[in-house]
Amino acid sequence: MASIYDKLVELGKKRGIYWVSYEIYGGLAGFYDLGPVGVLIKRNIIEEWLKTFVYSFDFMVEVETPLINPQIVFKASGHEESFTDPVVYCLRCGRVYRADHLIRDLTGLNVEGLSLEALHKIVVEKGLKCPECGGDLSKPENALLLFKTEIGPYKGQLGYLRPELAQGMFVNFKTVLNIARNKLPLGIAQVGRVARNEISPRQGLMRLREFTIMELEFFHDPAESEREVEEYISYVEDEELNVIPAEAREKNIEETIRVTVRDTIRRRIVKNPWLAFWMGLGNKFVRSLGIPGDKIRFVEKLPHERAHYSAQTFDQEVYTQKFGWIEIAGYAYRTDYDLKRHMEYSGADMTFFKKYEKPIETIKRRVLIDYRKLSSTLGPEFNNVVKYLQSKHQDELYQELASKGYVEVGGLKISSEFFEVKEEKVLVHGEKIIPHVVEPSFGVERLLYVLLEYAYSEMEDRVLLRLPPRIAPYQVAVFPLLAGGREEHKAMVSLATSIASKLRSLGLRVYYDEEGSIGRRYARADEIGIPYAVTVDYQSLTDNTVTLRFRDSKKQIRVSINELGDIIFKYLIENRMM
Amino acid sequence: MASIYDKLVELGKKRGIYWVSYEIYGGLAGFYDLGPVGVLIKRNIIEEWLKTFVYSFDFMVEVETPLINPQIVFKASGHEESFTDPVVYCLRCGRVYRADHLIRDLTGLNVEGLSLEALHKIVVEKGLKCPECGGDLSKPENALLLFKTEIGPYKGQLGYLRPELAQGMFVNFKTVLNIARNKLPLGIAQVGRVARNEISPRQGLMRLREFTIMELEFFHDPAESEREVEEYISYVEDEELNVIPAEAREKNIEETIRVTVRDTIRRRIVKNPWLAFWMGLGNKFVRSLGIPGDKIRFVEKLPHERAHYSAQTFDQEVYTQKFGWIEIAGYAYRTDYDLKRHMEYSGADMTFFKKYEKPIETIKRRVLIDYRKLSSTLGPEFNNVVKYLQSKHQDELYQELASKGYVEVGGLKISSEFFEVKEEKVLVHGEKIIPHVVEPSFGVERLLYVLLEYAYSEMEDRVLLRLPPRIAPYQVAVFPLLAGGREEHKAMVSLATSIASKLRSLGLRVYYDEEGSIGRRYARADEIGIPYAVTVDYQSLTDNTVTLRFRDSKKQIRVSINELGDIIFKYLIENRMM
Repeated sequence: MASIYDKLVELGKKRGIYWVSYEIYGGLAGFYDLGPVGVLIKRNIIEEWLKTFVYSFDFMVEVETPLINPQIVFKASGHEESFTDPVVYCLRCGRVYRADHLIRDLTGLNVEGLSLEALHKIVVEKGLKCPECGGDLSKPENALLLFKTEIGPYKGQLGYLRPELAQGMFVNFKTVLNIARNKLPLGIAQVGRVARNEISPRQGLMRLREFTIMELEFFHDPAESEREVEEYISYVEDEELNVIPAEAREKNIEETIRVTVRDTIRRRIVKNPWLAFWMGLGNKFVRSLGIPGDKIRFVEKLPHERAHYSAQTFDQEVYTQKFGWIEIAGYAYRTDYDLKRHMEYSGADMTFFKKYEKPIETIKRRVLIDYRKLSSTLGPEFNNVVKYLQSKHQDELYQELASKGYVEVGGLKISSEFFEVKEEKVLVHGEKIIPHVVEPSFGVERLLYVLLEYAYSEMEDRVLLRLPPRIAPYQVAVFPLLAGGREEHKAMVSLATSIASKLRSLGLRVYYDEEGSIGRRYARADEIGIPYAVTVDYQSLTDNTVTLRFRDSKKQIRVSINELGDIIFKYLIENRMM
Repeated sequence: MASIYDKLVELGKKRGIYWVSYEIYGGLAGFYDLGPVGVLIKRNIIEEWLKTFVYSFDFMVEVETPLINPQIVFKASGHEESFTDPVVYCLRCGRVYRADHLIRDLTGLNVEGLSLEALHKIVVEKGLKCPECGGDLSKPENALLLFKTEIGPYKGQLGYLRPELAQGMFVNFKTVLNIARNKLPLGIAQVGRVARNEISPRQGLMRLREFTIMELEFFHDPAESEREVEEYISYVEDEELNVIPAEAREKNIEETIRVTVRDTIRRRIVKNPWLAFWMGLGNKFVRSLGIPGDKIRFVEKLPHERAHYSAQTFDQEVYTQKFGWIEIAGYAYRTDYDLKRHMEYSGADMTFFKKYEKPIETIKRRVLIDYRKLSSTLGPEFNNVVKYLQSKHQDELYQELASKGYVEVGGLKISSEFFEVKEEKVLVHGEKIIPHVVEPSFGVERLLYVLLEYAYSEMEDRVLLRLPPRIAPYQVAVFPLLAGGREEHKAMVSLATSIASKLRSLGLRVYYDEEGSIGRRYARADEIGIPYAVTVDYQSLTDNTVTLRFRDSKKQIRVSINELGDIIFKYLIENRMM
């Protein structure tokens, strides 16, 4: 019996959901095309994500930035150094493998994140060979997973394709902060294509070299997050999450705990309350797409499994028949890592001016140097000493003077008699902080696959794609009955096309089909998950009604053509199937 | 006085429409980011394009294919050989220039499409030097404008980023044809990112190294196109186009003729009726976005200006204050060039089986070889002769035999007595044809710039972006009046936020703002082109009405909150401003 995966591959190719890219050239690992139906489902997923994560919040904005980045961006981000996977190749046939995956496939061991040496040791100890030709394997090496290119066709500069969207938001943080009138928290979202030069991707839509991400970087003041999150958390605080904390995993207990968003914060399971907030929203979002709550879990990554920029990471996983639990989203606490790195590499100011509620009165001390006295006391060292003293920050000078009674300059102790400290009261209106960032990040194609797997069903040997109505490629199908005399036939076709274009003008996605028997047309509509089907028949010509058929129940009701649009919208808004 | 271009740059940065990418690293030529407002406007442009070009037609479908392509695709497409621009560099300072642009800038000559030798001759004759340092210039060379990369991080294969979307549709033609149940005409559309490694892009959003294209490949049977187009042309046949035909340009007459779509076909100004159809639709589309018809023209490219795959090309140009006439779309008659090339390079069958209305009775002739006679007549040559005869197509053998009375094999004349021709009547149901293709292709960022330039205006020193309501980033702004006692204030804010979320739930894009005076908020809404603004005031609290203000006229009317959604939708559908 074919697996659901194989059935989806077949359906995908036949009905235009997805298929391997470049098939006429033998295909290319890690690349998939979306067909006419797949494009529409994907667009709906993105639209739902935007509504849930972006359009619902006043603190959220969206940007679009390039795939091609100059080298400096991924030097600063740390990817050039750390975004690697271990690779081994066969010394006999030359085949290239991802080392940790090869070890997992051959031994069952999970060795994600182990060092090259540790991996090599396992290869040697277990006597692992090339599974294709039995040849010896090379020592593991790190392969950079960034796609390289040259910007400028002639004497160009090195560039990389982005493997995530995040850096587009980080490098633009100050510009967007300014546009958003300098307020925190500030979320910057982006939906776009990324590329990861995977070593040997083999898992269909699950591991692509090029795919679409829906991501947001949520900039906030960590000192205020517990207070600020309260304004928004009511929407998700009771959402129950299945969590496997790292602490348990380290003790080899992979037990799932069921805990509300509120409790993940209270019990400090999630280190940053905003991270918990987005995890709660992410859980709700995935459930709203038709995945049952008990098939969703959050697995905290162990330190060596985390990306280099993250202080805490949860993978949101969904259970699939084909692959078991697979990651569909990641939630990372990136702290101030990225902004700090870009400050360092660009010299730009990436801070947020945190204004105090009331200005704070503080004492500002200025340390004045008694040059005359100093010059008459010191000999030729005078110039160097002055240069050094002037280069020091006033606060540092004061601290050293206050604690030691002198300032040391290259062995010389310049005592306090050479200085005069002046104090003045000043009002401080705020301070510069580097915001912290939490990041929820969804892979669209993985989500698409998961939704298809959950939607796929068979009824009496016919395929039925039970997609949520909002996600379905088309919301309504319109069919004229093809029978009767030529005049009636023409009248039904004409009425059906006018209903189709009426529904289209209301903003519905309409699928019109006048080929084959009604039964076959229903079957075709069911296969691509169209939730509602309208049939124009003889009766329609006399009483201005049509049948409205429901995909899942196959139930049919008779409705007036005038009310058809309203009725479909009502069902859609309720996201309901009779 | 600042030019409109500079004003848009300033507005773009301040209000989040667009800005140069990687500003903190000094910017990168040819790359732009879109900000919160720009992303929304762009999404609306794409949505309008999809509605106009894709969703309105039953013969249109959409796909999504990767940016990264294996080398073979652009070898087959001819891009690897032909997608180049001439480059020169300064022998002293090393600066790199696009040769034809440099010549144009220094001499005013239009030398697009001239050979490297011809360009070199001009450089020498005019004594052109590096404009930056006065150094001598190199000989022009061709620089490949495809971004290169390696697929697979370790011992990978050469790949290119796509410079157009088209090949994604061509390589998938048969798969999509099958999904569309083997019918022509068939249009395959795609909206997606492309990359062109331009030599030294300097014209803002006009010449990007990475940008978004909206493109469709329209596959049809050229023998049927005159008939098939009639079913659809009524929608555009009276649309008047401004056209500069190549014939006139060759005679150095750049006179524009004004001609209906119907007449471009009748007078054979456009070689393929479907090309004319899409040009008509493209003209309507651009007009619907607010560009006056007399600022749009179609310029036919001269043979040496056309891409290598095109038999006829028209650039759709719009007049801009900053750049003069600029291309926003191209309409190319690609013939069967691409499908043929992919057949050749992949060996795959890219033909369409054209079924005849009625089967045609033809006579099929089989040429039988009399081996016995042949072997007794020929000596050692027998084997080679038989091999040759068997390798020939039956039709060829018959033709040669019928015309010459013998078949020649390496000097030997094998006369008809060695063959027997058998004739049989067969019914032929159809034939394999290679469809022809016409392609309209829009650059989204160029369209965005053009729309902004036409929308930009100033009234009493305040900026007003007169975007068409459907294209505006937000459709409606909602403001609570901030005045009165604390209770009234709270009540107005609460009413305003509930109105905002009500309008959002109806599917409207809503901008909520409670900061600053109403005047300043109106000004901010005007700057980003929000067509309708709703203000909640004291009166709203007692009579359940609000003011609805119109962006362009500044007119205000009082409407009931209950009717607000309907009224705004009515204006939007009519795309109308009071």
